[in-house]
Amino acid sequence: MEEEQSPRLAAGEPERKLEDGVDDPDAEDPGSTGNAAMSSLEQPLLKRSNTLTASHLAMVGAKVSRIESLDYEIIENDLFKHDWRRRSNVEVLQYIFLKWAMAFLVGLLTGVIASLINLAIENISGLKMLHMFLMVKLAVTYCRYWAGFLYFAGINFGLTFVAAVLCVVFAPTAAGPGIPEIKAYLNGVDTPNMFGAPQLIVKIIGSIGAVSSGLDLGKEGPLVHIGACLANLLSQGGSGRHRLRWRWLRYFDNDRDRRDLITCGASSGVCAAFRAPVGGVLFALEEVATWWRSALLWRTFFSTATVVVVLRGFIEVCRNGRCGLFGEGGLILFDVSDVTVRYHVGDLLPVTIVGVLGGVLGALYNHVLHKVLRVYNLINEKGRLAKLALALAVCALTSAMLYVTPFAVPCTPCDPAFGDACPTLGKSGNFKRFNCPEGHYNDLASLLHATNVDATRNIFSTGTAGEFRLDSLLIFFAVYCVLGLFTFGIAVPSGLFLPIILMGSAYGRITALLLSRFARIDHGLYAVLGAAALMSGSMRMTVSLVVIFLELTNNLLLLPITMFVLLIAKTVGDAFNPSIYEIILDLKGLPFLEAKPEPWMKDLTVGELAAAKPRAVTLQVVERVSTVVEALRSTRHNGFPVVDRPRPGVSELHGLVLRSHLVAVLRKRWFLPERRRTEEWEARERFSSAELAEKGGGVEEVEISPEEMEMYVDLHPLTNTTPYTVVETMSVAKAVVLFRSVALRHMLIMPKFQGPEISPIVGILTRQDLIAHNILGAFPHLASKRKVH
Amino acid sequence: MEEEQSPRLAAGEPERKLEDGVDDPDAEDPGSTGNAAMSSLEQPLLKRSNTLTASHLAMVGAKVSRIESLDYEIIENDLFKHDWRRRSNVEVLQYIFLKWAMAFLVGLLTGVIASLINLAIENISGLKMLHMFLMVKLAVTYCRYWAGFLYFAGINFGLTFVAAVLCVVFAPTAAGPGIPEIKAYLNGVDTPNMFGAPQLIVKIIGSIGAVSSGLDLGKEGPLVHIGACLANLLSQGGSGRHRLRWRWLRYFDNDRDRRDLITCGASSGVCAAFRAPVGGVLFALEEVATWWRSALLWRTFFSTATVVVVLRGFIEVCRNGRCGLFGEGGLILFDVSDVTVRYHVGDLLPVTIVGVLGGVLGALYNHVLHKVLRVYNLINEKGRLAKLALALAVCALTSAMLYVTPFAVPCTPCDPAFGDACPTLGKSGNFKRFNCPEGHYNDLASLLHATNVDATRNIFSTGTAGEFRLDSLLIFFAVYCVLGLFTFGIAVPSGLFLPIILMGSAYGRITALLLSRFARIDHGLYAVLGAAALMSGSMRMTVSLVVIFLELTNNLLLLPITMFVLLIAKTVGDAFNPSIYEIILDLKGLPFLEAKPEPWMKDLTVGELAAAKPRAVTLQVVERVSTVVEALRSTRHNGFPVVDRPRPGVSELHGLVLRSHLVAVLRKRWFLPERRRTEEWEARERFSSAELAEKGGGVEEVEISPEEMEMYVDLHPLTNTTPYTVVETMSVAKAVVLFRSVALRHMLIMPKFQGPEISPIVGILTRQDLIAHNILGAFPHLASKRKVH
Repeated sequence: MEEEQSPRLAAGEPERKLEDGVDDPDAEDPGSTGNAAMSSLEQPLLKRSNTLTASHLAMVGAKVSRIESLDYEIIENDLFKHDWRRRSNVEVLQYIFLKWAMAFLVGLLTGVIASLINLAIENISGLKMLHMFLMVKLAVTYCRYWAGFLYFAGINFGLTFVAAVLCVVFAPTAAGPGIPEIKAYLNGVDTPNMFGAPQLIVKIIGSIGAVSSGLDLGKEGPLVHIGACLANLLSQGGSGRHRLRWRWLRYFDNDRDRRDLITCGASSGVCAAFRAPVGGVLFALEEVATWWRSALLWRTFFSTATVVVVLRGFIEVCRNGRCGLFGEGGLILFDVSDVTVRYHVGDLLPVTIVGVLGGVLGALYNHVLHKVLRVYNLINEKGRLAKLALALAVCALTSAMLYVTPFAVPCTPCDPAFGDACPTLGKSGNFKRFNCPEGHYNDLASLLHATNVDATRNIFSTGTAGEFRLDSLLIFFAVYCVLGLFTFGIAVPSGLFLPIILMGSAYGRITALLLSRFARIDHGLYAVLGAAALMSGSMRMTVSLVVIFLELTNNLLLLPITMFVLLIAKTVGDAFNPSIYEIILDLKGLPFLEAKPEPWMKDLTVGELAAAKPRAVTLQVVERVSTVVEALRSTRHNGFPVVDRPRPGVSELHGLVLRSHLVAVLRKRWFLPERRRTEEWEARERFSSAELAEKGGGVEEVEISPEEMEMYVDLHPLTNTTPYTVVETMSVAKAVVLFRSVALRHMLIMPKFQGPEISPIVGILTRQDLIAHNILGAFPHLASKRKVH
Repeated sequence: MEEEQSPRLAAGEPERKLEDGVDDPDAEDPGSTGNAAMSSLEQPLLKRSNTLTASHLAMVGAKVSRIESLDYEIIENDLFKHDWRRRSNVEVLQYIFLKWAMAFLVGLLTGVIASLINLAIENISGLKMLHMFLMVKLAVTYCRYWAGFLYFAGINFGLTFVAAVLCVVFAPTAAGPGIPEIKAYLNGVDTPNMFGAPQLIVKIIGSIGAVSSGLDLGKEGPLVHIGACLANLLSQGGSGRHRLRWRWLRYFDNDRDRRDLITCGASSGVCAAFRAPVGGVLFALEEVATWWRSALLWRTFFSTATVVVVLRGFIEVCRNGRCGLFGEGGLILFDVSDVTVRYHVGDLLPVTIVGVLGGVLGALYNHVLHKVLRVYNLINEKGRLAKLALALAVCALTSAMLYVTPFAVPCTPCDPAFGDACPTLGKSGNFKRFNCPEGHYNDLASLLHATNVDATRNIFSTGTAGEFRLDSLLIFFAVYCVLGLFTFGIAVPSGLFLPIILMGSAYGRITALLLSRFARIDHGLYAVLGAAALMSGSMRMTVSLVVIFLELTNNLLLLPITMFVLLIAKTVGDAFNPSIYEIILDLKGLPFLEAKPEPWMKDLTVGELAAAKPRAVTLQVVERVSTVVEALRSTRHNGFPVVDRPRPGVSELHGLVLRSHLVAVLRKRWFLPERRRTEEWEARERFSSAELAEKGGGVEEVEISPEEMEMYVDLHPLTNTTPYTVVETMSVAKAVVLFRSVALRHMLIMPKFQGPEISPIVGILTRQDLIAHNILGAFPHLASKRKVH
């Protein structure tokens, strides 16, 4: 037993390089490392070996980039301690005020941008549809349909082209919904180039283009990303070089406050997308955020309240057609409150079927989408043109399917009871005439020749049991299944919510039609239930989804059934595979820390885990400059344990020093000619804590002369003397819980024994070391104990 | 610096007694210790001194009891490890199934009990009111009012007497709402006699009696407590001696699973009280629970879904008067959905005033209630008769105020537009005739001569702007302010929600009446807003309150204004004092760990804190029986660090052994004649992990012979080898965050130095040591840095 714990002398030795670094994370072309990493598709970014290795690469956008962990720990070193002790009450109040002002601004801007996006989409796609109808109706020969199609497809093609080009050229990370990356960010993973100004702008314009072009995607996911981008930019005081350098803002430029603000941004985005303030807060809480506090709940709520006031204001301003085709709906997107829900035992059967189907179809959707995304990744890797071609091909497919399929169903004569409403003449409405004679309508055209939001509104509409034919609904469902699978991975901003809602509502109505003997509640409500069930079956949310649907449909009496359906769908779905966001996180190789440790983690101690890693690079508390520079150059570690040897036989773990602080010292050239401990005031005279916190360049940018290399650095004032530690006998399961609960970036391992010549530190663990994947690579025998999903 | 960290030899020494123990926690009469503790009212249970002391006493019910901390840590010792490694897949599935079945049962039983309570209350108080009206109407002389009053007061007196006697004699802890204790339980504080069968039964019957007797209290808080009691009893397999001893249940009998189930119970209770499934989940999340996981969110949601289905079922069964006077309402308690809310700038002023007033009045209410409760505590201490007298006095006051005040307002003639509805003849309705001539009604009687729920329904009713006179509303407000303050602390089960709703709705309507020039939205909605604002001003909840009000009133369009009002009220209220639940927690002396550490905690290290405590009692890994017995008898510590000395100069912190496990060993008499380490199988042969987990009696019940005292115990198989540790230099602020995030009971402090003859352990911290109050007692100089509230 003793031998296992043999004392180690870990001091100042340079270490083997831990990562196969991609040295230029900004390289646009996927380099060879990227390709190599992508070739193993099952675990795209991970290699297995006998020692514990970690990949710090992830797929961001469609390329492989280097990712960093975020540091939520409170750094307790002399300089920072001095700083906060001096902080006056006024400064504390400034800080509090700033936090609330930021939350307000995030809400305000998200609300305004969401309204503008809505305005643009409704007008562009509305005008497109109107002109197409006019074309089809006015042309006299048979070729009018061709003209209509060419017009329709041409406009769509142009809009997609704009969105895709922007996305491919300026901000590849703006493709997709962005929600998995936000989820990862709030878990502590910083994906590069994700929340900047280019992403924000591309996301806004790209989203308008993509949604208006009729692609089967929503603006909901992108709005969440937009909220997060806004939050990030605000907390930094702007983007890149144009950053504000306010004194106020320096208190704000840390990972903890940014995390809180990005949570506000994400919930504001959801709120703006669904006009659901409470749903937005709950979505952030249940699906996106990893850490949560009561105070944050309140601030998030404040942001979404601001959003909803802004939306409300826009709707009031745009009433009576002052904003073109926008603003005809109210605050509630899909209002079905006019139906009084009575409960019947007979409904139990179809409702249960809707729930079970939701789970099965959701899991199936996740599975197939996973496969499609892997193929798409291969295509997208081939370069910009391939990405663009893929997007345009999907656009052409979409246009063709939407335009052509309505010809497959016969026309339905208008029920005179509907009066003037049938056939619909304007943009929206349930009874599109399209290819039908006077007094008839094409029910499939009503659903397909509309924006996605209008289609949802039509299919959710209540009191319309006989309005949609079964074959139309089946075609509609098939079309949106195909489009939903093939649209998501293309290089435009795209959300998953609306495609799933469309699919779900279709099968909900189909179930109601097929089982109309039992179905006593309205078919529109079955569409709502189907949408909710499929969402739950694919995304596996519960409470937030219930509230979002409540706020979408404004029918409180539907609540118990919705809850019932969601519970069934989630249970069924969980039996097959994880949620779609987890699948995407895994596919992108983002090191997400799960809440629950794997059972086999109880059989491994952190000491064993550390032994599988290269020895930790430690520094002496007063260290030679050359050693520091060597440590920084030879590794990409972000923290180095600092040890001391106050008298013979006695050693001390002094703490942990961050790479950025070491670089700051080198940059400031705060060197000592002799090996001695400095006084606190000496350090304070040379450094302000603000300088220490500043994020500068890397160690490569600092030039050190050979004389300086021989000098010393005193790490006392820089070292965080209170890092979180565990004893080497702790099981990995408990360590993972600790790591995630307290939101760590580094966890130091201390020896179990206390005695002479025992190194005060056994090793250091980071996020990558605690990811189940990576551990199994080093300890394959544990995999056999792994529970089946 | 070196001297501060002087090596300590901490091994096996008995320790000074840490607490002034009240040795019999079940003693009914408040003993001298209790009185002494209560005499300093500002910090009722804490003394200040130079060393860190901790009071393990809290006021539970109206007496002082000993409290324990809960242990949420995963104990990793040989026996348990062996147990879970052997656990088959079937057993794991059994466990998962059991968890869900429990959540279902909690929901089911809470729903059924809530429905039965409702049924009883509606029938008892309805019949009481009906008979009183008949008496007043049928009697011919003036003394009919006297007869009515005597009847009314007599019935109330009788009902209160039943509730109070039950509460005083059988379960003093059933008084009050129980929510603060649940909050403390979920934070890790086990208040004794709180969640047992007597509490459950007394709470049910007492709540029926107290609410039916017209006292100004609600059944909402008690329902939450009832849900928690059910959850606790189910997780234990029953109460006390009649406990089921299923093999299945043994996996369940731990603090972690019980915590989860009690969270389910609490949210089921809220759901049953307000018929608000989502609100219930959010209430548990925002207000009650300290730790939260996504999986728990889902299980809680399942429980509340069950509750709502049960409630719905009861309502369907009771339709058409099959349950007497119960079941006339629908699933929505106070439906105001018939009003379409349009937003006007003019409403901004009165709505803001409602919000600000909510904050001010809420804070004022908290402040005055705090004073009243302190006086009541003094009265309640005097014995059972004093408690009973107080309850009956408040009942008499209530009856008098409710009956007499309607005489103060003039009668209002019925508007012919109301038709037969005015004056009301039956139990409920807006137009009570009472003392008025034919064709007139007394608006104050409509509000006061009704159950609290009916009164709320009346005052929330929409389209009734002119129905209530200003003077009636002012009297109503005054009456309920007085009653709300004086009713809460008496010895009957009582909730705070309804009194606050009644007060709030009154001032909301008053504001609307006074500012009717500006108020464009319905006065009934102003009543809703007032109620929400006062709730927020007193309880400081946000999201959960919004959802509860949404589910209570079914008006989604009101949501943005509700959010606005709540934000104002909470902000204003927070400027004055903490929330009412925090005030009660403080008053009861429950050691609640706050989420945010105090700023001055950064200036203190855990090492300094440990130095202010008596030295920790440590045990050797193979220890003499006499030492173990001595350690158990002389302290009430629940965990003892175990150290080892594998070779000269080297020592080891082996782990932490729990008191209950030591007692189990003594009870099983697993002693060794010589000092040696046992093999793992030896221990397993003698012990099953189930025996170890069993909660038996104390050490006093074990008799050890003098020969046995000389023998040895091997603690290897019992010791949790992976306790959470911190280094002595860590600041208390960070330690508190760790302690709360990971939900610890014991936190071991390790030395900073590594060398010979340094003790491997510096000290041990528990919940009590990290409570701000206790630390300030030992380090008064830190108090000067304390931020003002």
